[in-house]
Amino acid sequence: MTDPSRDDELVFLPLGGSGEIGMNFNAYGYGPPDNRKWIVVDCGVLFGRETTSPGVDLIMPDIRYLAEQRGDVLGIVATHAHEDHIGAIPHLWPMLRCPIYATPFTAILIEGKLDEVGLSAKVHPRRVKLGGKLTLGPFELEFISITHSIPEPNALAIRTPLGTVVHTGDWKIDPDPLVGEVTDIAALKRLGDEGVLATVCDSTNALVPGESGSEAKVREALTTLIGTCKGRVAVTVFASNLARLETVAIAAKANGRHVALVGRSMHKITDAARETGYLKHFPSLLDEEEAAQLPPNRALYLCTGSQGEPRAALARIAENNHPNISLGKGDTVIFSSRVIPGNDIAIHELHNKLSQLGVEVLSADDHFVHVSGHPCRDELAEMYRWTRPQIAIPVHGEARHLAEHARLARLLQVPQAIVPENGQLIRLAPGRAGVIDEVPAGRVHLDGRVLIDEGAGLARHRRALAFAGLIAITVVLDGKGKVMADPAVVIDGIPEPVHDAIRNALAEPLRRHNPKRDLDGYDLKESLRRAARRAADEAWGKKPVTRVEVVQV
Amino acid sequence: MTDPSRDDELVFLPLGGSGEIGMNFNAYGYGPPDNRKWIVVDCGVLFGRETTSPGVDLIMPDIRYLAEQRGDVLGIVATHAHEDHIGAIPHLWPMLRCPIYATPFTAILIEGKLDEVGLSAKVHPRRVKLGGKLTLGPFELEFISITHSIPEPNALAIRTPLGTVVHTGDWKIDPDPLVGEVTDIAALKRLGDEGVLATVCDSTNALVPGESGSEAKVREALTTLIGTCKGRVAVTVFASNLARLETVAIAAKANGRHVALVGRSMHKITDAARETGYLKHFPSLLDEEEAAQLPPNRALYLCTGSQGEPRAALARIAENNHPNISLGKGDTVIFSSRVIPGNDIAIHELHNKLSQLGVEVLSADDHFVHVSGHPCRDELAEMYRWTRPQIAIPVHGEARHLAEHARLARLLQVPQAIVPENGQLIRLAPGRAGVIDEVPAGRVHLDGRVLIDEGAGLARHRRALAFAGLIAITVVLDGKGKVMADPAVVIDGIPEPVHDAIRNALAEPLRRHNPKRDLDGYDLKESLRRAARRAADEAWGKKPVTRVEVVQV
Repeated sequence: MTDPSRDDELVFLPLGGSGEIGMNFNAYGYGPPDNRKWIVVDCGVLFGRETTSPGVDLIMPDIRYLAEQRGDVLGIVATHAHEDHIGAIPHLWPMLRCPIYATPFTAILIEGKLDEVGLSAKVHPRRVKLGGKLTLGPFELEFISITHSIPEPNALAIRTPLGTVVHTGDWKIDPDPLVGEVTDIAALKRLGDEGVLATVCDSTNALVPGESGSEAKVREALTTLIGTCKGRVAVTVFASNLARLETVAIAAKANGRHVALVGRSMHKITDAARETGYLKHFPSLLDEEEAAQLPPNRALYLCTGSQGEPRAALARIAENNHPNISLGKGDTVIFSSRVIPGNDIAIHELHNKLSQLGVEVLSADDHFVHVSGHPCRDELAEMYRWTRPQIAIPVHGEARHLAEHARLARLLQVPQAIVPENGQLIRLAPGRAGVIDEVPAGRVHLDGRVLIDEGAGLARHRRALAFAGLIAITVVLDGKGKVMADPAVVIDGIPEPVHDAIRNALAEPLRRHNPKRDLDGYDLKESLRRAARRAADEAWGKKPVTRVEVVQV
Repeated sequence: MTDPSRDDELVFLPLGGSGEIGMNFNAYGYGPPDNRKWIVVDCGVLFGRETTSPGVDLIMPDIRYLAEQRGDVLGIVATHAHEDHIGAIPHLWPMLRCPIYATPFTAILIEGKLDEVGLSAKVHPRRVKLGGKLTLGPFELEFISITHSIPEPNALAIRTPLGTVVHTGDWKIDPDPLVGEVTDIAALKRLGDEGVLATVCDSTNALVPGESGSEAKVREALTTLIGTCKGRVAVTVFASNLARLETVAIAAKANGRHVALVGRSMHKITDAARETGYLKHFPSLLDEEEAAQLPPNRALYLCTGSQGEPRAALARIAENNHPNISLGKGDTVIFSSRVIPGNDIAIHELHNKLSQLGVEVLSADDHFVHVSGHPCRDELAEMYRWTRPQIAIPVHGEARHLAEHARLARLLQVPQAIVPENGQLIRLAPGRAGVIDEVPAGRVHLDGRVLIDEGAGLARHRRALAFAGLIAITVVLDGKGKVMADPAVVIDGIPEPVHDAIRNALAEPLRRHNPKRDLDGYDLKESLRRAARRAADEAWGKKPVTRVEVVQV
């Protein structure tokens, strides 16, 4: 590795994930301020929510700052295949057009995503082997196997002439993770011995004391629990949690049950896993039709839909309209998953529907059927003991998680902890680390098939439509400005009893319209708009979005 | 009490609360099927949600079945003053116009509600003393003091010639509730000795093992916790939980802190409490301005806003725009409350904003600062031991709570457990209990100031607007059906890049319009509607609500 030039700096730039759990997008820059080379670590999405962003499927970071320098972006490196780390690649790659690097399992899932948007001919993710190395300009990257809730999660050691950054990705400690490697503690300690400038680390569980727990314990508990079930059993899990799929399959087998996978993403993940050599010890699977032929106490369905997703397998079972699976009295559904914030109502509704069918519902609320894939406080403490960085940078968390993580790092004697915000350009070296600039940042919505700036306020405007509906009035004037007919009034999303009040309120502005003074109806438009809104407010207590058009014939 | 006539029946009719936690509305009927007398127990609301019912403030039961027999509705009896038990009175009373009965504290809060809608001259709640009795036609009611999370909660013993029903209301067991009476176990046991036909009981915590815990333990824990705080402290609680207000006030005093109430409903509740003789031992209070003058470690703010309500005191403090209170580094906010399902995101956002101000946030996630006001499984078991009913009827719960509560009752040897649904007319006596009829039931929305049937689908339609926006097209035809000008097109809630595609798609149907065959533009309307939706779908992947009007001049 060459020595740094006098002007060289190593900078960290989060554009997503610092302030939210999701939408991870972190860039590292190296070089003089006017000529930095960049690498991007992860490129993920957040899911839209009907409350705050109705009609928005995916939320992604605004990366225009890097897009403007795309000739200097040397690559996107994906730590693992969760949506919040790779989900934005098919949508944002066209702005960067750089190589993509990932370990094999992750690469296959990225390929699938690129294929879905017709980009597979333009870019192929380059495969890096587990524990592999990669040089991108001034950055020397080493992939370090860790444990998480998906196959092939990696931390990255990012070596530069100005020091080494450990970017943890999403991780936990599990001495017995069932699938994949245990966290490569030796490698992390070796880095600590070499000297680590900064550890950029997962904050998801920074508020949770203790340890996240072992998958092997879940296996034991599920084996016992399934043993108590008499009828059909369905278990719903995150499809990407291959270790959990194996846990459930082993627990099923121990109880003489055959497993069928139910739901599209179950098949997508297991196909990718088989292609990369996983699932060799997985018990053989039945298809849905075969499982339906078994006696109830011999079948177990592994289903998608743990978050109450309305079109997933479990929702269809609960609605009793799944083509092959029907559950009822004596059957059991186990939610081997957590409740992602914002999904509680949808999940409760699913519980209720299953309960109304007579199904018994078991979940992490009342049984030990899930462990988190993210490090709790004792695990974070281990990470700082291993890597002994000069700087702690908490990422992958909301403000409260980041703040608490920084507090913990300081307690653990890390000399400096920096809570970053998306868009802050943070110099890591040389000199004392700190924010040196703010670059454009924000969120972009995938709204239908169109990418639009959150700042344009379209989703927010649709919330106004959802609150108070819309009035569209069209008035027809002749060439001399005279009103030619009753206006056309579209009233939408407003209670019937309010309609007459709105229509009646238009008479007065129309009567007062003076064609001579207002030939093109400019003033009339505004007075109609005001009259309609005032009438709605008086009759209803809400002011609808109101649009007035003039057609002149 | 007279003997029953040959045709007399005792029936139970839930119109709300069986299938949801909230909107409690239960009716008991007595007499022959064609001439029943009714009493209503509780008349509450559910709160609307932006996801499922945008623009809806309150959700209430559809009570048209009772409204049609309102001459036979002898009274509304309120068990306690929570919104989910009394909140619908001002909106639904005009349909029943019967007397209202409640204990003094509850009566004052109902009076306030009636006053807000201009009904206070028409009906005065009649006050029943604690432990009091009341005869309404064939029903002899006894109020039995219980413990809950508000002053003056009551169970009702409803005696009829065909047997006694114990309607528990919302309750828990707390040997040391701090404010108000302990649950009157002797009265409940006495009823058990007399013989209870049915116990109609709170199911909120039917999934939670053990006991709900004691307010006195919260007092101890909060006293210790506040003792560890150095700067300003704000504690947010449900304003109606007077015992918790007192708990916090005592914990503050023990730590040399003076309390200020912050938020409108804090004052409303404490005023009602003082008027009815509570709060005599409450430490003296400061107003906000006085508290702001104290050294930080001498002040404690009791705030509304524990659910992240955007206009409540705590939200304004977190936004740093409260007129008198400003929190920052070194200060602490304690959430002494639970997370009501559906509110998690709003509460987390509040946590994050406070955290960004440097405030430390403590909550029931990580500290013992809250106990529930509803009975857990061991407490439910006690209730069945005391009352020993022939029939258990779980109410006040979602389907899963009701099912689990019924399962528990059967385990406890209750001979019959019936899971009711809103609108089911359930005969309790004579003979074996069971559903004998279904009456019209459902939900009514308070949308702005207008009450509308949920079934009319207005809120659902507005969700469609929030998802895909709206297109309103107005086309002007002359008397012969000829198009006179370019149509007026209002496009709302749709991304800008899609607008041209929509506008351009209208040319073809306009060109193909044949004035002779389609004089009034009927076919043109439909072809324009289809063309606009198809264009939006092709360019965007969504089909907006599309309305077309024809103006003929």
